[in-house]
Amino acid sequence: MASEFELIGRYFSPATHQTRLAGGDDAALLEPRPGFALAVSTDMLVEGVHFLPGTDPEALGHKALAVNLSDLAAMGAEPRWVFLALALPAADEAWVAAFSRGLLQLASAHGVDLAGGDTTRGPRNLCLTIVGEVPVGHALRRDRARAGHDVWLSGVTGEAAAGLAMAKGTLALPPVDAVRCLERLHRPQPRVALGRALAGIAAAAIDVSDGLLADAGHIAERADVAIVIDAVRLPVSSALATLPESDRFAATVAGGDDYELCFTAEPAQRDAVQAAAATAGTPVTRIGRCEGGSGVHVLDRSGTERRLQSAGFDHFR
Amino acid sequence: MASEFELIGRYFSPATHQTRLAGGDDAALLEPRPGFALAVSTDMLVEGVHFLPGTDPEALGHKALAVNLSDLAAMGAEPRWVFLALALPAADEAWVAAFSRGLLQLASAHGVDLAGGDTTRGPRNLCLTIVGEVPVGHALRRDRARAGHDVWLSGVTGEAAAGLAMAKGTLALPPVDAVRCLERLHRPQPRVALGRALAGIAAAAIDVSDGLLADAGHIAERADVAIVIDAVRLPVSSALATLPESDRFAATVAGGDDYELCFTAEPAQRDAVQAAAATAGTPVTRIGRCEGGSGVHVLDRSGTERRLQSAGFDHFR
Repeated sequence: MASEFELIGRYFSPATHQTRLAGGDDAALLEPRPGFALAVSTDMLVEGVHFLPGTDPEALGHKALAVNLSDLAAMGAEPRWVFLALALPAADEAWVAAFSRGLLQLASAHGVDLAGGDTTRGPRNLCLTIVGEVPVGHALRRDRARAGHDVWLSGVTGEAAAGLAMAKGTLALPPVDAVRCLERLHRPQPRVALGRALAGIAAAAIDVSDGLLADAGHIAERADVAIVIDAVRLPVSSALATLPESDRFAATVAGGDDYELCFTAEPAQRDAVQAAAATAGTPVTRIGRCEGGSGVHVLDRSGTERRLQSAGFDHFR
Repeated sequence: MASEFELIGRYFSPATHQTRLAGGDDAALLEPRPGFALAVSTDMLVEGVHFLPGTDPEALGHKALAVNLSDLAAMGAEPRWVFLALALPAADEAWVAAFSRGLLQLASAHGVDLAGGDTTRGPRNLCLTIVGEVPVGHALRRDRARAGHDVWLSGVTGEAAAGLAMAKGTLALPPVDAVRCLERLHRPQPRVALGRALAGIAAAAIDVSDGLLADAGHIAERADVAIVIDAVRLPVSSALATLPESDRFAATVAGGDDYELCFTAEPAQRDAVQAAAATAGTPVTRIGRCEGGSGVHVLDRSGTERRLQSAGFDHFR
């Protein structure tokens, strides 16, 4: 390997406060706590596929880790270690400095060690593997949803999709709303504290990366239940207030990249869910319920299923 | 993500015999055994950098995992789970079928679960993250070598380098030797059983991927010792018997990709090392010792330092 790539790797000098041995050996050594299972997720992000050439590297470093933290949040796990493999077309020190700054700041904010990795020449490609801990038996698993469960959503959805439409030039918003939606798109804040607080209280969870309908559908399919959402209960972002109602609805139910948590819990856990949300400082809204059947169904006040119009869908999907 | 890539991902349908939850959720769930530390290593392999376009995909699947298994062997860890992220320029089903066959056969042979991963479109890139277990305190760490330790080597080195020189057309060997060297190059067998057997017996270890001198040098640097190798003790492959002595020596000390283990242990452990080697069915040779000082020094019978001639070095490096 070219020595300049090894040099570049030093920007990622592993932190070691919770890692027995990080870097400088054939493998990192981690010591998980007894009574905890490990949640592990791997994501590969390719330039030209997952992000555009010229993407701000600091925002990219943030987002690459945020997406992985969000996966662990959706398992109810505490993120502890991350491994980064990085291919770069050239040893571009300015790019690496900014990328590592974005990634390491977010890692530090969540108490995550960069425990190891690899740096090489090649078409730009980021592969992150994140490792977290969750008490044995407490993980939030998609297959644990049951008919009769409540369905909950953290925060609001649709803002990142509105930000993306703005970035593409197909949507205009008042400046204050624009700033919020673009920040949401470029610097998502994964719901790590909420996910951890819900472990052992909620049943199933998923992070909303592909849109609420699509992601709730993954729970429905995996657990073999129907998910019924009351349209009137859906929290709607004030940043979308100036949009036509049909666009607002489309952004809310089909917009991706918000990284909110959609989760199910027994009705007996309503107080516990609210207490967990308060602990995490994250608002949650009960938006529906699981029933027998399949699929995801959004009902209006009269109980009629509300369908997405494809125009709105295409706009925010 | 293009649906054909999800389809392709099914070739890697995770095995689940030692994984609580693999695939189909936001993260895999692993339950490490109490009293064990985890050894984790990540490697990224890029087409055109680490392997040539047109490389046999089955051999590539084998080698990609073998290299990672070798990293864990060098830690004394038992490999248990692997995660695979894969970028492919097209959803080439024949390629994936052969690649997954090579990878999964070796995984199965070592009792390793493919516990999760990611598949995407992009320039061909393989990123493997392997997770193994080693009893707390027993890991073979480069920084644990001490002056006075013996230095040992498993098997023989130089065969893969001879295979590479043959593949490049710069070396010819008799057919039986050629077959052996090419097999060694294309289908390395990581010393997993030996590494595990040495945990708690040996001190420092490294796998020989860049050549014995270079890799022993990593131990010397990390542990702040000198490594002195007696040339006469170095095991030499019978497959290299037809080479001029200077080339044989160069291949043995500078040839890479053999994935043997070079390790140190206290002299009081000699019997235990031999017993571990017998348990693992892997020959080991005591080739030298650690002393005060720095660097790696190969001494001839008279105690004179033997230096590599650059011609031989270039040939097999």
